[in-house]
Amino acid sequence: MSVIPDSHLDLLTRPLFGHLATERADGWPQVNPMWFTWDGTLLRFTGTTTRYKYTNIMRNPKVTVSVNDPESPYRYLEVRGTVVNIVPDDSGIFFAEIAARYGLPMDGPPSDVLDRVVYVVRPDRTTSQ
Amino acid sequence: MSVIPDSHLDLLTRPLFGHLATERADGWPQVNPMWFTWDGTLLRFTGTTTRYKYTNIMRNPKVTVSVNDPESPYRYLEVRGTVVNIVPDDSGIFFAEIAARYGLPMDGPPSDVLDRVVYVVRPDRTTSQ
Repeated sequence: MSVIPDSHLDLLTRPLFGHLATERADGWPQVNPMWFTWDGTLLRFTGTTTRYKYTNIMRNPKVTVSVNDPESPYRYLEVRGTVVNIVPDDSGIFFAEIAARYGLPMDGPPSDVLDRVVYVVRPDRTTSQ
Repeated sequence: MSVIPDSHLDLLTRPLFGHLATERADGWPQVNPMWFTWDGTLLRFTGTTTRYKYTNIMRNPKVTVSVNDPESPYRYLEVRGTVVNIVPDDSGIFFAEIAARYGLPMDGPPSDVLDRVVYVVRPDRTTSQ
């Protein structure tokens, strides 16, 4: 049983950008548009161990993603979830998969592939409109 | 002098949706797409005193908004700012102004006009790509 409402499932299955929020050490949220994948149970994001988002998540694994519908921008899904796993992606296999989903075919792995990780997020609660 | 980089100013002057993040009491960020206005110095959002966002902001006025370019979604601006004022809008004057900016002409004030407030946000720092 997924917590995602059927009415808004398309916002996860379509290759839309999710605005992912994490908590910074200074008390401000960090938010920016991110690629994601959805396998019916878990959300996955690509990141690197050298960026602020990594240290934010290590400190507080409670993250929130907001996705709205480009064709009807008032329609949105907010997923509050937990980063339950951080998986190395130093082969770039996940990066290639997510880049293909977003229509950006790669000639090879990205230059920062050795720092690449996958954030695996379990949805806990949602809000939608 | 504004902290907003000239290269990304159009993301505030165009009527795009901003994904506004506040901090919830349970440690999760709250994020959802919101209308905003920009007068060259301050961002303004419409809200109501009956919603979670209001209590979140009263607890922690550090908020962050993420706006990306629908025509080039990798291009984004993140503004970390402070809610420096919460102004009553029980006349609905600001609501009418912001609704017009987003092409939603109103016949009259919204039904929750008596609870309406304006969040006035001073940008402190930005990140952009």
